[in-house]
Amino acid sequence: MNIKLDLKNALPFVGGEIGEELKEQSLRALNTLVTGTGAGNDFIGWLKLADGHNKEEVEAIKAAAKKIQGDSKALVVIGIGGSYLGARAGLDFIFGQNYNNIPKETPDIYFVGNGLSADATYDVIDMLGDRDFSVNVISKSGTTTEPAVAFRIFRGLLEKKYGATEAAKRIYATTDQARGVLKGLSDVKGYTTFVVPDDVGGRFSVFTPVGLLPLAVAGVDPDVLLSSFGDAIDACTKPDFEANIALQYAAIRNALYRGGKSVEVFAAFEPSLRFTGEWWKQLYGESEGKENKGLFPASVDLTADLHSMGQFLQEGTRIMFETFVKVEKSNREILIEEDAENADKLNFMAGKSLTWANHMAMAATTTAHMDGGVPNLTISLPQRNAETFAALCGFFEAACGISGYMLGVNPFNQPGVEAYKQFMYALLGKPGFDALRKELSDRGIG
Amino acid sequence: MNIKLDLKNALPFVGGEIGEELKEQSLRALNTLVTGTGAGNDFIGWLKLADGHNKEEVEAIKAAAKKIQGDSKALVVIGIGGSYLGARAGLDFIFGQNYNNIPKETPDIYFVGNGLSADATYDVIDMLGDRDFSVNVISKSGTTTEPAVAFRIFRGLLEKKYGATEAAKRIYATTDQARGVLKGLSDVKGYTTFVVPDDVGGRFSVFTPVGLLPLAVAGVDPDVLLSSFGDAIDACTKPDFEANIALQYAAIRNALYRGGKSVEVFAAFEPSLRFTGEWWKQLYGESEGKENKGLFPASVDLTADLHSMGQFLQEGTRIMFETFVKVEKSNREILIEEDAENADKLNFMAGKSLTWANHMAMAATTTAHMDGGVPNLTISLPQRNAETFAALCGFFEAACGISGYMLGVNPFNQPGVEAYKQFMYALLGKPGFDALRKELSDRGIG
Repeated sequence: MNIKLDLKNALPFVGGEIGEELKEQSLRALNTLVTGTGAGNDFIGWLKLADGHNKEEVEAIKAAAKKIQGDSKALVVIGIGGSYLGARAGLDFIFGQNYNNIPKETPDIYFVGNGLSADATYDVIDMLGDRDFSVNVISKSGTTTEPAVAFRIFRGLLEKKYGATEAAKRIYATTDQARGVLKGLSDVKGYTTFVVPDDVGGRFSVFTPVGLLPLAVAGVDPDVLLSSFGDAIDACTKPDFEANIALQYAAIRNALYRGGKSVEVFAAFEPSLRFTGEWWKQLYGESEGKENKGLFPASVDLTADLHSMGQFLQEGTRIMFETFVKVEKSNREILIEEDAENADKLNFMAGKSLTWANHMAMAATTTAHMDGGVPNLTISLPQRNAETFAALCGFFEAACGISGYMLGVNPFNQPGVEAYKQFMYALLGKPGFDALRKELSDRGIG
Repeated sequence: MNIKLDLKNALPFVGGEIGEELKEQSLRALNTLVTGTGAGNDFIGWLKLADGHNKEEVEAIKAAAKKIQGDSKALVVIGIGGSYLGARAGLDFIFGQNYNNIPKETPDIYFVGNGLSADATYDVIDMLGDRDFSVNVISKSGTTTEPAVAFRIFRGLLEKKYGATEAAKRIYATTDQARGVLKGLSDVKGYTTFVVPDDVGGRFSVFTPVGLLPLAVAGVDPDVLLSSFGDAIDACTKPDFEANIALQYAAIRNALYRGGKSVEVFAAFEPSLRFTGEWWKQLYGESEGKENKGLFPASVDLTADLHSMGQFLQEGTRIMFETFVKVEKSNREILIEEDAENADKLNFMAGKSLTWANHMAMAATTTAHMDGGVPNLTISLPQRNAETFAALCGFFEAACGISGYMLGVNPFNQPGVEAYKQFMYALLGKPGFDALRKELSDRGIG
């Protein structure tokens, strides 16, 4: 694993070093995680995703991706939360945020079913136009409202365009292996199906078929992702505090939280990492935000947001720390050219690269924020590609398991997401929710 | 002004109502703002943007927009912070987040110079391809690093493509009326220029040429924006607490802040409002985040983020309140169709619109979060269009001035943004920063 973690701008805020007790706590939490002896231990299958047991399914993913690349100009990916953010994060991380608009051989990829906006849905229909497309619907149960509604819409479009038989050949369902309405529908219609494993929660599922298929359609080799993810999991589950940066990350954020920080800001200097930040927010927010605990996860895109959130970060309420992500080398480089007139007075940077300037901005920011009372960490990656995306995810997932156990919560459940869903089902008139509907109506809601 | 504010899910958290003292404080703050007697009173020109004094400039903007629409397939907008987020927010708000990719008659619009990413910059160069384009560079001083570097790059591309004379006719500089390197360069080269007024700070500048020109190129009438903005400013500066929702918004967020909340979450149910949220974050974060005060501004895209941040919002650390933005009517509508097989069991929603479902999801969310201990407000807009965008901005700007004075800060300065810039200039080797550069080098930085 080729990821580094630098704590030097955070340690001064926790007494200069991470104490022995915290180190031991992190090691105990790691032990709880890897031995499967903690709360939520039926959801740690992600630790074993790279052990080769799913070889056959990976080959099927590659075959499906090849078929889609051959018969479709676009893939519509239907999913929300953990069935959305992993693939979206990976696509942006690896190809940049303009994948659909830059020259390429692979199909465009549109993400729908991650909301209920009519206008946003229409946009995708417009962008598809009359091009050939396929659909990958991702839902464990098939009953989550947003993807279910989107699937009804886009399945309808496919059937209208191709007829029921051909449409069924263009639908790929990633769902439960045995139960649920989507699995049932797939069996009846003959869709190609892939399995969301029972022991992997949504926010840990990016390297199951949930994320692997959309990324494979974009040309990313699933074997490369799994191999790099596995290496990261190995490195991040070693019971050696000085060598294992997942232990260090879990320990420092726990120390900062105990010291009174309540917000962690994910800060990247590449816009292509925006959705990695969104994925990270789900991973940590959903794993730790329970029992009235947890760090509020926020994110900024830099340097852009230095010109919007910079004032607050420098001088606002001192409730946050920052986790910077640095990419050492750009995929392409731009040199700042000499200008004979130098009217803009930028010649002092002539001959330097944009990435060098970006790194100087980052060094300036981490230093200024530390001086301003904001502890910060830096995670460094050599480059943006499939390997480093998978490694970064493996690092964050392992650290999240450790961190959740250190906080004393079950990092693998999400009891709080049901509350609004129950209310929503009642308000939407779903059968079986009449009593709750009346209760809400009595409160004047709906 | 056709905007409503609903406080019913927040008032229970502040004792059931907004107290008389707080009401009076908000009225005093409003008086300070409108009489220009408070700190930062040389930066309240935004209050008068719609009084017609700039009629001539507005006509010049329309003429420039028309020329660009005629001779360019794309406009490259160079700016950062307040010289970026307003136009970006407006473009997405009015046209949706896929403006560049949906069928239209007007030029594509690309935003650059809002960061230092080489890969992101290259993407825009790729997307421009060999199409005709123009550049709108927006910078008061001309020396802010990110836009200055981007301007050197894209000016170079224009000059290479068209030659120096024709390139100059395709460059529109929005800058200081008299000073600065960009003004100087514009005078020498003969660029068309527009003025960033001296008495309007960046985060309040969207309805100066800073935002008006890019939006006009996309087909938005500056007169409509200014008129609606002016109406909103009028409504939001009336010294009548019960009728003026800007006073109410300022008062409730102040009450919640005093009551211990430290994070305000901007929550919209339309993805097209994402950048309105980013603009709002700069407006409030930069205006209030000083002297170790202020609410940390965050944002979520719903319903998407209910499946990522939902757990934290429902059950995590109780440090936040939410400000929901509701759009009453979609620009286009999708009806959920009856399905004879009903394998997905969604027929209970057949005949209903996606927007209705979205609104039910919102009612469920605001209720569940209130029940979970998260106060929330709802701002309602009739529809997404130029009028409501301008009205919403006017409301937020007026409320921000009031809120800042209630907090006891100067809402119109941003002293904290200089710290990292000084460090960055030193690290980049800018002439005049040698001593600081040595100081940083002695600390092992750079």
